[in-house]
Amino acid sequence: MSYTAAVITISDKGFRGEREDTSGPALCAIAERYGLEVLYRAIVPDEAEDIRRELVKCADELEIALILTTGGTGFSPRDITPEATKTVIERETPGIPEAMRAASCRITPRGCLSRGVAGIRGRSLIVNLPGSETAARENILSVMDALMHGLDMLASSGSADCAGTAK
Amino acid sequence: MSYTAAVITISDKGFRGEREDTSGPALCAIAERYGLEVLYRAIVPDEAEDIRRELVKCADELEIALILTTGGTGFSPRDITPEATKTVIERETPGIPEAMRAASCRITPRGCLSRGVAGIRGRSLIVNLPGSETAARENILSVMDALMHGLDMLASSGSADCAGTAK
Amino acid sequence: MSYTAAVITISDKGFRGEREDTSGPALCAIAERYGLEVLYRAIVPDEAEDIRRELVKCADELEIALILTTGGTGFSPRDITPEATKTVIERETPGIPEAMRAASCRITPRGCLSRGVAGIRGRSLIVNLPGSETAARENILSVMDALMHGLDMLASSGSADCAGTAK
Repeated sequence: MSYTAAVITISDKGFRGEREDTSGPALCAIAERYGLEVLYRAIVPDEAEDIRRELVKCADELEIALILTTGGTGFSPRDITPEATKTVIERETPGIPEAMRAASCRITPRGCLSRGVAGIRGRSLIVNLPGSETAARENILSVMDALMHGLDMLASSGSADCAGTAK
Repeated sequence: MSYTAAVITISDKGFRGEREDTSGPALCAIAERYGLEVLYRAIVPDEAEDIRRELVKCADELEIALILTTGGTGFSPRDITPEATKTVIERETPGIPEAMRAASCRITPRGCLSRGVAGIRGRSLIVNLPGSETAARENILSVMDALMHGLDMLASSGSADCAGTAK
Repeated sequence: MSYTAAVITISDKGFRGEREDTSGPALCAIAERYGLEVLYRAIVPDEAEDIRRELVKCADELEIALILTTGGTGFSPRDITPEATKTVIERETPGIPEAMRAASCRITPRGCLSRGVAGIRGRSLIVNLPGSETAARENILSVMDALMHGLDMLASSGSADCAGTAK
């Protein structure tokens, strides 16, 4: 089965055109390599309202299966992507950021500093990724196979509860 | 010291008798192998109110030390065990699901998809496990030794803070 | 760049002088070894109001960069440090306790029982550590290099988002 994707870049400098957004295109390429159709792209500043609006639009209006964000997961005062994301998520999926950070920590101890969250809204899975292209790539690739299975579960009706699909 | 346990299966199909519950009995057997006395068993549908009622009954009325749930931790729309559990937990124990998912990820990348939570209510420890028997077994066995020590801490009065028991 | 630190010991027995606080001094020594200036030390009982008051004072009044707590992260009924900490944190940094517990679990399976949290308030990073000196040492040392980088990000103005500093 084929799914749709959205990639939202969250960056003040990217939004103002002061920094080239390389993470967004990199995530689009990865999503397409996994057979996802990238239906939506946006660059927004580090503002909670903008982030919320984009996530809600992608989930509720466009009904996109996988919504990836890049940026705003660090420690800087303007980094508020996880906080904005948590307000629109209905069911958290904590194992996804845990697995990404664990993979990242095997590359650099700084991997533990990403504050990204992930979760479900309706039939959409939302995943926060770091703003650095290298870190965003490493993070998403470490869980992409699992995410594809998660999308299958989300798209299924009723409560399969993984019983039929577990190895 | 010996402790009591409860095993609650959360599954629409199990509740309606359309699927045999093998995870519940598997968890009972593991609990007994660790010397726990399984005092309570139930099968409930994926309904927040039913899950809440069972957890509160086991913790507040039956004062059971270890309350295990199986099922409802996936991505399907009816999977709401973690959300229901969070509403009755007083103090979260995030390291328990983290350790279970980390162990699970060493077996299959899909291990990161379990959304289970764990935490304390009164003197009871509540732990969510996946619905698949294989995954439930793997998850609980990866932390069972630690859980037994956690039960000792919970049963102790005052704030031992692990200082006396730390190696 | 040099930063300030605070070390707050949370222990009923320590507060009453019934147990020598060895974790606090151990954490001070580690902080100083990393070039931090320990500006504030306190021992408080396991009371939410006391813990909150100390954390707010260190962050808002003293504007300390790194605030470490030791104690109150276990399962005992009086262990409420994470709950008190969560009420003063503005932005959670879940990867820090995750990384500490993962490191701790490589030493002992009981590592998963620490319930500590970490997060940002203003320009301060708050990190909960276990009460046992050995565990507190192991936990902080496993993330200290990353924390130093986190302090750099926190001290920076605007949203660097790690793009310039990522390897």
